[in-house]
This record gives sequence, structure tokens and C-alpha cells, in this order.
Amino acid sequence: MCTAATYLTKDFYIGRTLDYEFSYGEEITILPRNYPIPFRFMGIRENHYAIIGMAHVAGNYPLYYDAINEKGLGMAGLNFVGNSVYRKPEGVKDDVAQFEFIPWVLSQCANLDEARALLDRMNLTDTPYSEHFPSAGLHWILADRTGALTIESVADGLKIYENPAGVLTNNPPFDQQMFLLNNYIGLSPKQPENHFSEQLPLSCYSRGMGALGLPGDLSSASRFARAAFTRLHSVSGDSEEESVGQFFHILGSVEQPRGCCEVADGKYEITIYTSCCNATRGIYYYTTYTNHQITAVDMHRENLDGNELIHYPMLQQERIFHQN
Amino acid sequence: MCTAATYLTKDFYIGRTLDYEFSYGEEITILPRNYPIPFRFMGIRENHYAIIGMAHVAGNYPLYYDAINEKGLGMAGLNFVGNSVYRKPEGVKDDVAQFEFIPWVLSQCANLDEARALLDRMNLTDTPYSEHFPSAGLHWILADRTGALTIESVADGLKIYENPAGVLTNNPPFDQQMFLLNNYIGLSPKQPENHFSEQLPLSCYSRGMGALGLPGDLSSASRFARAAFTRLHSVSGDSEEESVGQFFHILGSVEQPRGCCEVADGKYEITIYTSCCNATRGIYYYTTYTNHQITAVDMHRENLDGNELIHYPMLQQERIFHQN
Amino acid sequence: MCTAATYLTKDFYIGRTLDYEFSYGEEITILPRNYPIPFRFMGIRENHYAIIGMAHVAGNYPLYYDAINEKGLGMAGLNFVGNSVYRKPEGVKDDVAQFEFIPWVLSQCANLDEARALLDRMNLTDTPYSEHFPSAGLHWILADRTGALTIESVADGLKIYENPAGVLTNNPPFDQQMFLLNNYIGLSPKQPENHFSEQLPLSCYSRGMGALGLPGDLSSASRFARAAFTRLHSVSGDSEEESVGQFFHILGSVEQPRGCCEVADGKYEITIYTSCCNATRGIYYYTTYTNHQITAVDMHRENLDGNELIHYPMLQQERIFHQN
Amino acid sequence: MCTAATYLTKDFYIGRTLDYEFSYGEEITILPRNYPIPFRFMGIRENHYAIIGMAHVAGNYPLYYDAINEKGLGMAGLNFVGNSVYRKPEGVKDDVAQFEFIPWVLSQCANLDEARALLDRMNLTDTPYSEHFPSAGLHWILADRTGALTIESVADGLKIYENPAGVLTNNPPFDQQMFLLNNYIGLSPKQPENHFSEQLPLSCYSRGMGALGLPGDLSSASRFARAAFTRLHSVSGDSEEESVGQFFHILGSVEQPRGCCEVADGKYEITIYTSCCNATRGIYYYTTYTNHQITAVDMHRENLDGNELIHYPMLQQERIFHQN
Repeated sequence: MCTAATYLTKDFYIGRTLDYEFSYGEEITILPRNYPIPFRFMGIRENHYAIIGMAHVAGNYPLYYDAINEKGLGMAGLNFVGNSVYRKPEGVKDDVAQFEFIPWVLSQCANLDEARALLDRMNLTDTPYSEHFPSAGLHWILADRTGALTIESVADGLKIYENPAGVLTNNPPFDQQMFLLNNYIGLSPKQPENHFSEQLPLSCYSRGMGALGLPGDLSSASRFARAAFTRLHSVSGDSEEESVGQFFHILGSVEQPRGCCEVADGKYEITIYTSCCNATRGIYYYTTYTNHQITAVDMHRENLDGNELIHYPMLQQERIFHQN
Repeated sequence: MCTAATYLTKDFYIGRTLDYEFSYGEEITILPRNYPIPFRFMGIRENHYAIIGMAHVAGNYPLYYDAINEKGLGMAGLNFVGNSVYRKPEGVKDDVAQFEFIPWVLSQCANLDEARALLDRMNLTDTPYSEHFPSAGLHWILADRTGALTIESVADGLKIYENPAGVLTNNPPFDQQMFLLNNYIGLSPKQPENHFSEQLPLSCYSRGMGALGLPGDLSSASRFARAAFTRLHSVSGDSEEESVGQFFHILGSVEQPRGCCEVADGKYEITIYTSCCNATRGIYYYTTYTNHQITAVDMHRENLDGNELIHYPMLQQERIFHQN
Repeated sequence: MCTAATYLTKDFYIGRTLDYEFSYGEEITILPRNYPIPFRFMGIRENHYAIIGMAHVAGNYPLYYDAINEKGLGMAGLNFVGNSVYRKPEGVKDDVAQFEFIPWVLSQCANLDEARALLDRMNLTDTPYSEHFPSAGLHWILADRTGALTIESVADGLKIYENPAGVLTNNPPFDQQMFLLNNYIGLSPKQPENHFSEQLPLSCYSRGMGALGLPGDLSSASRFARAAFTRLHSVSGDSEEESVGQFFHILGSVEQPRGCCEVADGKYEITIYTSCCNATRGIYYYTTYTNHQITAVDMHRENLDGNELIHYPMLQQERIFHQN
Repeated sequence: MCTAATYLTKDFYIGRTLDYEFSYGEEITILPRNYPIPFRFMGIRENHYAIIGMAHVAGNYPLYYDAINEKGLGMAGLNFVGNSVYRKPEGVKDDVAQFEFIPWVLSQCANLDEARALLDRMNLTDTPYSEHFPSAGLHWILADRTGALTIESVADGLKIYENPAGVLTNNPPFDQQMFLLNNYIGLSPKQPENHFSEQLPLSCYSRGMGALGLPGDLSSASRFARAAFTRLHSVSGDSEEESVGQFFHILGSVEQPRGCCEVADGKYEITIYTSCCNATRGIYYYTTYTNHQITAVDMHRENLDGNELIHYPMLQQERIFHQN
């Protein structure tokens, strides 16, 4: 389905894969400071932080999949089908429709602490954007350079988890995903020592045997373990190019090639796009299944004081550089 | 260490990852038809098929890692440390030094059938290129659009295996790698059926659970299984861009991110480059760890009747396309 | 730690392994109908169903580990350290100390339906038996021939789960154990079909490959999966000997040999005893680590109308039959 | 199919499981010193070491499955279908029919060193015992208190391997089984350390997590790993009862319960019997699927200077000890 991750070098990065069998048509969308955001139950916010992210734009409204704001806070929604349970608006707390959740947070919170306070008084509702866009079953990762949260609205209520792994995929719920990592506790980038038996002449016949047991399939629990292992052991320089490059390598470990996950006869889930947002500098980098080159959209190259959505199509054409 | 794969759509493709903790300095190198190839024991071949591939060029001699010729035959050498055993020159069969093996085959064989005949009368020797370049422990994949072979020179002699998986990694020997695939016989891109028990309400909580059991670590046997599964289930269009793109997705499934395979304190094996050769059209595509964009060198844009090596440096700089 | 299972042929069977590094001294203990049971908060029960089970007898009081009553209801307590949370007595519901739970249920419930009703109005308290016997962190399986329940007192409250697997081990909580079985959904006693690739000549090199992926270690989640697989696929005749024999084979699949689970330097968890109760006929069968022969204590060979505990030591001496 | 193991305390023990879907009718059979053994190509041996083991007796000839001799040397034949290749008698070396292999060795070798010398000049032939008993595809474990060998007659010739694991199962060939143990190199009876990430609060939620990754199914490679792990970490006292008891626990780890390995519709492979021979003292202990009690036949209670086979039926009836 999807995998999200965070990464910290000099700057803070957050991004995700979007894995699905078709695209709804999404665009890199900048929401400038003076675009009036109409919330269903909370009025219109006229002035706010600027946001850049991937969104399906419906009737001039950005349905964000993942985004950052100009203050360095980032957020992504990932499929959570079968576990997400939203509430009805109650008029007590802040009633926020699930499709508004990302702009609700990113428009007004400069960092994770502010977001924590906001989440405490929020009621996430199942209000659909329209009859054509029913409420999606999602959970979210919300992060800045100080840490990450996972937010899940389940039968039990709204759960807010610290996320020390800096990774989110899909089912099962986040606390179970974290629990399951215990099964991989001994895995390491270094070669294993022989604990099986000193009486046997065992040896490492290959490099990389310290992580034997790490799952390689595309299910959400396996992607969680693999992305967490890769992210937590990641080593890179801290320049922009090195950081962004390494980030795409991290999410590359859970990329879904066409053919390996057949969701219906002849229909395959693939990694439609992979994003990497420099949340510190407001740059949205992405690759698509059909274009390996990293493409960038920089919010600060736009007039952020405007009041109209700015959007760029996702470049899908493989851009091959011909060296001769 | 490394992974190689083949892929057939309208054209035939072969490529590989080169995984290591440092680079010897390799270049995309074209050996034109009239470059005189000096073989150690077999004289000089003045006229031959043109070759393009990745090579370390030492004293104007191309030490090829992987290459194709203009006829559609391709070949790659991969680490096989601890298992490869070469012979001494004997003057009976064709004595070929292991570093000459790729040009020996690609310079004179138009296809796999011709190569089979050539291999039958070959004696692979441990002769080093020079005292600075000792003989490397390798095994090879050799393929055209009709199929693939694996060639291993072991204690037992020279082994030539049909390779229906179209994949090669490193240890253990190829016949064992193929045997081990039996352990994954039930894995599928489709969701599994419930055979555990009809009495239990089991279900698939995520897409992609049909391949649970596929290993996700970076050891050579795990990469073999993962690359084979990905390649054998690969689905793509047959245009050049779709084919090349899909090929990089196949090898992406075994890419080595920096940090996940620590070979000495603070030293990490990474995928230095990934190649994809269109063997039908003579185009060498590649990406590097630090440059996600696909770069191409087309042998047919050069004068293939020349007698001098043509080489292009590997472009290492991340080429980001700025959309705004 | 421990594994419990149920089994149904003509009669109904329930039993368990007790896995630990030392024994507290337990005996097969019959509690006859007129032994007055003093409950801490619920008065004394003078007349009740007779019970047979394994207990540590402290001051003439049976601290049962596992037991059945004369009506065919059985129950076993298994370690649940780190997850069990008991309550304080409140005087509202039936306050039952955790050490009284087994006699509380088995003394008055003839079947699972009656037990369900009783559980609904119960408050499980952390009251210790004495300062020498602090409250143990446990959860329970409770079963008759119609089905099985798992009962867990956790931070969230008292959880009562239907248990279609008929198996209980230790951590994590039961709902997670059941969820994890989804990962084994495709496992089968039959040979797997080739879904990996029709292009490869894969085959089953051994019988029993349909269950590849079933874990073989002694951790509680792995024992849960292995015992569930074995129990759910179990095939036996329905005579007493065939049923009892098969039951010991089921729990044999998770037996802990000395040396394979080192809990402190030189201290090893082993399967101290394995029990199999014929709940229909009131017979307690057991083996111990040091005695492979099945030993039986039949409650109906005692005067069940008595008012004194009857207890038999566990026979620990290997009884070898010398055929010549 | 089958698993064999050795064990050394004060005395030396060797035994095996016989796993199959039906029995040919085997008996504990003593071959005394003066029973004339008719070899097909090597004459009749009139005087020799006495042997005790499990055999199908056909026409007064013992077709041994596993046996020991009075000198402390033991041997067992296990299924090796698809890999075993026998030779034709050639009249050069000692031509020995595969069905004669166990008496050939045990009748004349007092220890492993003498056996090594004998094996060096042996040619193992495919000669069947009779038209009703075609040659079986087997390989063998041969051991005394100093060590163990595995003997395999394959397409490549007769292979004699040192067997430091002290375990044998079935396919694949022994060198591959040993190689595969490298994949379990890090497994331990102790709890694992956290190498996954210091940033995560991972913990061991259960005892026994150090062996996570050990396979739990009944295929021959999985049984090999599980039996090797159990045997190599085994801890027991060195008395006869403790040693024999522990041995049955070792092989208990790979016992096949009825229902878990379906070889044809409604036909299940089970562990028909498990043996444990005290090779030092000449005692044959066994259990059967239907009788958990250990039964013993002691060769030294018979007249070993006789010239007639002595045989005892396998006791199949569950012998339950009734404690009240």
C-alpha cells in the first residue's frame, strides 16, 4: 500500500511511497498563506502557514496525501483499511473531517509540540469531501526534526503514539507494528557471531548475513520492518544531495515493482510515486514509477503570499540523460 | 556483493548491480571492431564484434565487469570468493585468463549457441592481469534473448549451467542457489488461500501476503531469491522506456543502501552502480548510488570500426530536475 | 513458559505443558465435593463439583495450575507476565482473587455457558494467597467440549475471548497471538504447489514442505503457531488410548528440551510436566520431563463425597519397561 | 522421513526416528556372534561381533534399519530418495549390497577408525535383497563415542563425510545440509541482544527468543536444523536414565504427529518408532507412536554366542501406569 519515513541530517526530511494499482491524478500543490481554507466545522482560515505537498485537487480544494509546511512540520496519510474508525461531529472538541486533517494541522502548527496540543482537542470525523470522495480509511505520520507521531482513529478512540522508528506503513495498528519489531531484535548490519555451536565450523558465506530473518515481501508488516531497519541504520553525508539521495534509497528498500503484488487478475499494485520533502527548506522532491530522475518543486520559488493554489503535474516521462 | 539479471520484452536486456565498499574507478567503455585484443595465450584478435560495457581501463586494456556485444550477447562477472578455482594454462584447450573471459566470448560469439561451443573447448586460467590486479574470484552470467548460462570454475572443474531464473548473485554455487528456490516454491504475487485451518477466521490483513517468507536481507542467497521472484513475475510494457524502467525496478529490489551491510568498522557495501544493457540495440544504461537518473551511452553513436577504446566516465552527480 | 491445548474425539480433553526452570512441588490433587472452599471475599462453599488437577498444596489449600471438574469443564492458568493487571476488591461484582479463579469456576459451573455468565459478574483481584505466594501474572484457557475461552485481565479490563484455536501459550495477549496466525495462513500439511514460477523446474525435495515458514523456536508466539497448526490438523482414532496418545503428540510439538532455553547462566527452562485431562471421564494423565510413561489418576476411583484433599505425588522416575 | 542423532555422556548413544505412513513390520533383532552372515559377494562370515537393532526379518535374514554392535559402534540408514545412486558389483573392491551395509560394517568393525578403513575399499551395490525388496534409496550415519560419519552413495561416487553435527535426516545431501546451518549461525538458547536499533525500546517479550528463525516444519532440512540445535545445546546428567531420557527429548523435537504431513489423501507420515541405543552397554531403547513408555531390550541378557536370530516384537500398546 504505502510506506512513509523521516530522516534527519542537517535538514529534516519526510516522505513516502504511494503504492496502488491506479492513480486518482495527483499534483504537487502549493497552498499559499492567504488561500482561504474552508473547514467544515471550524470556519474559514484566511491566513496560515504555506503548505506544499502531493494532492488530488478537487474543485480547487487540495486533498493532500502528504505535505510539509513552511515551518518544518510534515505529515502523510497512509491506508489503514479495516482499522480506522472515525467519529461524528459533536460540537465539543475541534471537529475535523478526515480529509481536512493535513491542512488543519499544517496550516497552524509550527512544530510537533504545537501539533500535540492541537490533537488533544480534536475530534476526527468521517465527513466525506463529497459524494464522489467518500472518507478514506487512513492513519497518519506527523513529524518534525524533533521526532514523529503516529495518529490512528480506531474503534477505541483517537490514538497518538510516539514513533521512534520514524516509519509508517499500513495494517496492523502501529502499536502492533512496533511490537513485531521485537522479533527482529537481533538483526544487524554486521556479520553474526556463531552462537549455534562452537562444535561446528560455521561461517558467513556472504556479506550481509547479520540481517537474515528480515522479511522481503511487500506486505505492510514486512515493509515496516524492512524500512525501519534500513532507516535506522542509514548512513549518509548531510549535504542536500546526499540526504535526498539516501532518503530515496531508504524508501527504495520497500518499493513495489509491477507484477509482484497482484490485487486482481492482471492488476498490480506499484509504487506510483515516492516523495522526499525537505521540510526545513520547503522543497518537494519526487520520483515516479516511470521516471527514475528526482524532480523538485521549491515552494520558496513561488509567491507564498498569494491566495490561489499553485500546482504542478507529476512528471511521468522517464528522463534519460544521453551521455553520447 | 552483486546481482545480475536478464529481461526480455521486444528487445533483450541484461544488467547488474555492482555492490562494494569502494570503487576501482570504472568507465563505460566501447571496444570497437578493430581494436586489437591481445590474449595471453591465444594471440591477438584484430577484427571482432564491437563491445560496450563497464570496465576498469588499465593501460589501455578494458577489464570488463559486464558488457554486451553488437550481436545481442551479454555477460557479467560477479564475485564468487571462496568457491572459484581457476586452472593453469595447459596448451591443450583454449587457455583463457579469467580477466579476458568477457572479451574472449563477446568478441567472437554472436549468440549463446556459439558461446556454448566456445566454452566447451576453453580452459579458464588464474593468470593475473598484472601484479597490481590479481585474479578475482568470479563466476559469470552469459545470456542472449534465447536464454542464459551460468559459468563457474570450481574445484571440480568448469561448470556450465542453464540458468532459467535469469538471475545471478554470489555464493553459494549456482546449483545450490537454484536448489534453495525450492524452499520458496509456494510464494506468489497473489494473496494466499487459507490452508492453516478452516476452523479459524484467518484473513489477509494486507496486500502482498502471498510472498511472505521471501527473505529481505542483503546476503547473496536472499538477493538471489528476491531478484528471481521479482524478475519472474515482472510485468511491463515492451517499449524501450517501459522495459528499461522495469529492469531498474527489478534490480532495485536488491539494491544495497548505505548502512545496512557493514563490512568493517564504518565501511559499508553499497550499490555503486546498476546497469541495464539493451543488448539488441547496443545501449548501456546505468544509474549510480549518487545519481538516480538513468544515463545512457549508445555504442551506435560511435564509430564502431575504430581501433581505439572509447570511454565515458560514470556520471556520479545527482541530476535533479527543477520543475519550478 | 507453557502451552495449553484442547482436543475433542468421543471425549473432551484439555491439558498443558508447564515449562519452567524449577518446580514449586506440585501434586495431582483431588478436591472432593464436600471440601469446604474458603473464598476470600465470597464466603465458604461447602458443597460443589469435585475437581481434579495439578496443584501446589499450601496449608491444605490447592493452588491449581490446571484442573477439570466432574462435569467436563476444564481450565488452566499460564504465565502472562508483563501483561496481566488485576484489580482491587470492590464489593460490587464477585471479587475473586486470582489464585482462587480455577476453583471459583470449576466448583460451580457445569459447562462453558454457565462459566460465561459467572465471568460476566466477576472482578479478578490481585489478592495474594499469602506473603510467601505473591499474585502470579497469568491468563487462562477455559473449555468444555463445545468450545474454549481465553480470559485475560489486562490494563484495559477483563477480556474474554472465544478461542477457536484451542491453544494458549504466553505473551503477547491472545488477540495478537490470533492475529499473528494470519502470517501462516497458507501453511498446509500437504505439499505446496509451484506458484514461484512456471519457468523454473522447482520441486519438493522432501515431504512436509507445505508447512515451511512454521517457526521452530521456543518463544511463546512460535509455540502458539506450532501448537495450533499441530492441533488443528491432528488426526487420530477416538478410543481413549488413541486420543490421549495423540494429545501428548500435540503438546510434544512444543516440548522444551533442557539446554535450548537458557534463562540464566546454567539454568534452563524445561517442560516439567505435560498433562492431558479426560474432562468427560475425570482422568488426569501426565508425563514428566524425567518420565516418558503416561501416568493416570482417576478421580472416580476416589470417594468424591469426602471433605479432605486427596493428593498423589508426581512420579518423576523414568519407568522403563524391560522387554527381556 | 527420518532423523538420526548421537549423544555422548558417560556412555555413547545413537538412535533415530523412523517416519513413514506405514510399517513393514520391524522387530528388535539380535544377531549373535555365531549366526553365519551370508554376504552376496563376500562369502559367509561365521564369527563376528554381536549386533542388536531394529530390522525387518525376511527369511531369517535381518534387514537392519539401525543397529549397534557389542563394541560400541552404531549405524542407521535413512531415506535419501532421488539422490542415492548405487554401483554394480565389480569384483575389485569389497562389493557390498546396500541392504548388507549395516551388518557388513557392524559385524567386523570395533570402532570408527576400523570402519573408515573398511569403507575405503568398499563398493556399494544396488543388488536387491529379493524381487520383493528392491534396493532402497538410503544414506547412513555411522558413529562411535569418538565421532560420526555420514556415508552417501551418489552419482559422483561414494562420499564419506565427517559429521560434527551428529545428526542426519534426508534430502538434500549432507554437505548441503551442513552448509544450510550457516543460515542459523546466530541462533542461541540465550536471549538476543538488541542490534536492530538502540533508538527503539525493543525487548524480549518471551523467553526463548534467541532461536527465532529456527524452522518448525517437518521437511528434512528443517528437521536437520532443529535436531542439530537441540542436540548441540543439550544439557543432561550422565546417568543412564538421564542420558536416555534426554536423548528421547532431542528426537522429540522432530517427532511427526499424525495429521501434519499428508503424503496422500488421508495418509499421514508419523514417527512410527524412536530408538535410542546405548552403544556402550548394548541396550536398545525405543518408543512407538502408540506407546510413550520407553521399552528396553538388552543384548547382554541373551546368549550372544548363539547362531540363531533373536527377535522381539515392537510393543505398540500404550502402557499407562495407573497411580490410583
